Amino acid sequence: MTERGGAPAARAVLQQCLQARLQVKPAVELSEAQFVQIDRGMVIYICFFKGASDDLLPKMASTLLNLKLCESDSGKMVSVSELPGSLLIVPQATLGGKAKGRAMQYHDNVSKEDGLRLYGAFVSLCEGQLAAAEAEVTVKHGTYGNRQVLKLDTNGPYTHLIDF
Amino acid sequence: MTERGGAPAARAVLQQCLQARLQVKPAVELSEAQFVQIDRGMVIYICFFKGASDDLLPKMASTLLNLKLCESDSGKMVSVSELPGSLLIVPQATLGGKAKGRAMQYHDNVSKEDGLRLYGAFVSLCEGQLAAAEAEVTVKHGTYGNRQVLKLDTNGPYTHLIDF
Repeated sequence: MTERGGAPAARAVLQQCLQARLQVKPAVELSEAQFVQIDRGMVIYICFFKGASDDLLPKMASTLLNLKLCESDSGKMVSVSELPGSLLIVPQATLGGKAKGRAMQYHDNVSKEDGLRLYGAFVSLCEGQLAAAEAEVTVKHGTYGNRQVLKLDTNGPYTHLIDF
Repeated sequence: MTERGGAPAARAVLQQCLQARLQVKPAVELSEAQFVQIDRGMVIYICFFKGASDDLLPKMASTLLNLKLCESDSGKMVSVSELPGSLLIVPQATLGGKAKGRAMQYHDNVSKEDGLRLYGAFVSLCEGQLAAAEAEVTVKHGTYGNRQVLKLDTNGPYTHLIDF
């Protein structure tokens, strides 16, 4: 599923959750930190590499939203669109890291500017595709560039990796 | 860092945590579920592929234990061995999945027998390497083959993927 002769243009890690809470605004002086929260559903951690283009996004969104990774009440595997559940999209540039000695390097990651644009477009596409499918799915997402302070409660994270 | 001409022999996903709790024995009739818990440290989700051999394990353990991915009290990046923190090793066969249509397939995963043996040996090696380095690190681990019911509290999961 990867493009550019094997090197991925984007990477997603998926974890199933019973509840997840993500900080979207850190505390500053007089104002408290702000969070978004989902209940049952899926967390998508997402990272874009150099060369990632907007053309990639519709396929990414449709693949990730339709994969049968979620356990329904009856124990059957369904997609997050069918659950009905919720989706938490977390920008996670660290997923682009490669070990070099004892340190991680992120030379293949997209620039911050392009990453911000692609991430925003990806979130909008997911919202759009779910709305079009009339799926009962709430989409929440982290703030690009922030530290992604996350709490996760699972019935088995069932962690998957998908490169695009 | 991958072997066998690009196809990995093992895959690790790493997440940093403030606290993590994993079920190691599900509830049955009269006995409650059992859990292991770590405080600050790292969660290693691990999956072995067909062709993975015991020869790979020392390098895997030493790489993962010595990568500077953990934030010390002073904000400096150090390895989990230096933190001092704790390590939670979670068997996660789903990491070997590949999307085929809307379903995930796990054809490249190692057999359950070999996976159990490699997982046990990997845990022992981590314990041994940390003991030899006199690191103040507690190692906890999940039960291979179980559903990995996990709770995670982070200050940023800082998710990394490393293929071997």
